[in-house]
Amino acid sequence: MRVVDLIERKRDGKELAGGEIRDLVLAYTRSEVPDYQMSALLMAIFFKGMSESETVALTEAMVESGEVIDLSLRGISAVDKHSTGGVGDKVSIVLGPIVAACGVPFAKMSGRGLGHTGGTLDKLESIPGFCIEMTEENFVRQVADTGIAIISQTPSLVPADARLYGLRDVTGTVNETSLIAASIMSKKIAAGAAAILLDIKVGSGAFMRNVVDARSLAEVMKNLGKRAGCEVVCELTDMDQPLGYAVGNSLEVREAVETLRGSGPSDLTEIVTESAVHLLGLSSLNLKEAEARECVEKVLRNGDAYAMYEKWVLAQGGDPNTDRLPKAEITKEVTTLCSGYVVHLDAKKIGMEAVRLGAGRAKKQDTIDHSTGVVCVCKRADFVNKGDVLAIVHARTVDQANQAINAVRSAYEIDRDPPNSVPLSLGRVV
Amino acid sequence: MRVVDLIERKRDGKELAGGEIRDLVLAYTRSEVPDYQMSALLMAIFFKGMSESETVALTEAMVESGEVIDLSLRGISAVDKHSTGGVGDKVSIVLGPIVAACGVPFAKMSGRGLGHTGGTLDKLESIPGFCIEMTEENFVRQVADTGIAIISQTPSLVPADARLYGLRDVTGTVNETSLIAASIMSKKIAAGAAAILLDIKVGSGAFMRNVVDARSLAEVMKNLGKRAGCEVVCELTDMDQPLGYAVGNSLEVREAVETLRGSGPSDLTEIVTESAVHLLGLSSLNLKEAEARECVEKVLRNGDAYAMYEKWVLAQGGDPNTDRLPKAEITKEVTTLCSGYVVHLDAKKIGMEAVRLGAGRAKKQDTIDHSTGVVCVCKRADFVNKGDVLAIVHARTVDQANQAINAVRSAYEIDRDPPNSVPLSLGRVV
Repeated sequence: MRVVDLIERKRDGKELAGGEIRDLVLAYTRSEVPDYQMSALLMAIFFKGMSESETVALTEAMVESGEVIDLSLRGISAVDKHSTGGVGDKVSIVLGPIVAACGVPFAKMSGRGLGHTGGTLDKLESIPGFCIEMTEENFVRQVADTGIAIISQTPSLVPADARLYGLRDVTGTVNETSLIAASIMSKKIAAGAAAILLDIKVGSGAFMRNVVDARSLAEVMKNLGKRAGCEVVCELTDMDQPLGYAVGNSLEVREAVETLRGSGPSDLTEIVTESAVHLLGLSSLNLKEAEARECVEKVLRNGDAYAMYEKWVLAQGGDPNTDRLPKAEITKEVTTLCSGYVVHLDAKKIGMEAVRLGAGRAKKQDTIDHSTGVVCVCKRADFVNKGDVLAIVHARTVDQANQAINAVRSAYEIDRDPPNSVPLSLGRVV
Repeated sequence: MRVVDLIERKRDGKELAGGEIRDLVLAYTRSEVPDYQMSALLMAIFFKGMSESETVALTEAMVESGEVIDLSLRGISAVDKHSTGGVGDKVSIVLGPIVAACGVPFAKMSGRGLGHTGGTLDKLESIPGFCIEMTEENFVRQVADTGIAIISQTPSLVPADARLYGLRDVTGTVNETSLIAASIMSKKIAAGAAAILLDIKVGSGAFMRNVVDARSLAEVMKNLGKRAGCEVVCELTDMDQPLGYAVGNSLEVREAVETLRGSGPSDLTEIVTESAVHLLGLSSLNLKEAEARECVEKVLRNGDAYAMYEKWVLAQGGDPNTDRLPKAEITKEVTTLCSGYVVHLDAKKIGMEAVRLGAGRAKKQDTIDHSTGVVCVCKRADFVNKGDVLAIVHARTVDQANQAINAVRSAYEIDRDPPNSVPLSLGRVV
């Protein structure tokens, strides 16, 4: 295999053979192919894309690059969930306990925050004592014993992705559909779940800016799952404004718990319910939609979902009492300077501001302040009078809070007429 | 400067500022930018190209990356010549002594063979004792004293190009007009000549396959020269068949000497004469075309050109006696199996076969056999009878020679009707 020949063929729009892609990915993982050739190939892929069979070969090679968890060896038919990342997206923390409370094991390996979008691991680490690192053996045992585990991606699974993702991140080659699909699906397949729900966020606060791109990503991932024997359902959901009200780690955990207790924001409750219904349908319980919905509503109503959350957090060493979550020293209100309808609430701006307040990382090495963030009191279509509170900034210092106020205010667009309503669900690929 | 931002902007078809390109190239030369980011950027440039001002900035930054020779400090107004590389292209070895014999200093830094095309340095090294390595100081002194020097590119000139070229070579990013132009012109500008003749080869045996691409490369290089205060003339010449008869290092030197003595192949003599006329016109002698032509014909006729060749070779430690050039152990005739006109003689096939016989390198580390190669006895438009000799293979072993015979024969296309005549000169950019 001459790597430069593969680069030139991809550059010229020709298809690479499955065996070539496999050899390349495995050689790259063993450091036998230099980064500078891989990054040139990735950029050629950015321009020329990958065929279906190339994407399948890439995904399979990535899975093959490391260990694979076989939950079925323990007789577990677990479900998993992945979101392409949004602002205020705390769905996993609510969805996992609900599904587990309904009797379906939930087994998820998760990632950290990326850019202006938060990460489930960062949110979970705001829970005092919560441990996200676990061996694969303990992960499988916890799923078997507790019914739910959400841990950090272990380094022995899909090492090719860790290397490739790190390279894509610094070479302008992140946003390419087949590369995104292979990265996500290789990790999901290696983590061993039998059914996977993919939540593809669309809008200003997401990496996918429009429904067409999101749908094509969904189709590719669905197909990759199928080839690996996984049931996959993709939901396309709106990420033009933050999901729920809270943006920032402990703020989001608190909101997740409220939702598990049945008093969460309506958009978050809706998306979590729909996702849970889908997963129960795909799971080994094989529930019909009406049965699944009944089951989900029951565990939210009768406290079983929250009880599962407590059990889970305790199993991973955390303190489930929300009073123990870190609180910001300073809170400041952001008021509106005019009256009217909120016609747009820019998720990306809010996400960026939360990062600046310490809720996310500008650089990989940065540490996070789990207490900071923004709570969006008003959202799209709300009517506000001049002087009303739009949002609350949670900050470390007064200066920081004051700096954030204008930015948060500018994320709100107020107009005389109400906005057209935008549905939360933008489509589904099943 | 965040390199990933520059990559993304170029990827998205936006223009980079001159200062950004300068900072990037200088940082890369200091190893402060990793190869994997540069190769991703190069691939983005492959797809999106560079604007005129980007190409100027790249060239200037590459010149700035190392030392610059100022021949004018010694009162020398020298000329230089570059060919984009062809098969049987021994023009520099003939042109240099002619121009110098006419009173115009010839100062050239040259390269090695690349792929199926030969390199002037490899050809010169077939002359026993000839030394191509020289300090810049000695280079300038020899140009002043002898009137001509052709040496290896010194590492202190344009170090950015050495790094960039090495990277382009293994990442499928060689064939992009602005990158080619910046690579050639930065070296020419740094080497200090006041006027430069660029011979852009077009055809099956050249990197430029068509006149349109060649002309656009010529325009870019011409412009880059102008910006640096260099007179530049570009000639586009046919490289569908080898130039002259001989392909292979010592074989080509012998043919070059014959041409300097006035009995060379007509195509080589034509191209060398035209090039010399141009250079004399651009030089400080500022000769009119008729005067220049008279001068060139005179030095070819009266032995001054050959005398200059002897003086030059001796100055660089070589033995000018062509009887001392290495000769291949084995020569074998390639005869034609049918009668008719030679309608096509494939330069690339002949070049590849010469490489296989040891005249070039398949890998950088390969050593060259200076004695081997192919002499094309017949060329396009010649009429041959079945059994006539088309070419002579010069090889190390009988086996090697026998292997080459069929390949060389297949480079010839014989037909009943004569081919359309193709002019050697395909255009000029002045």
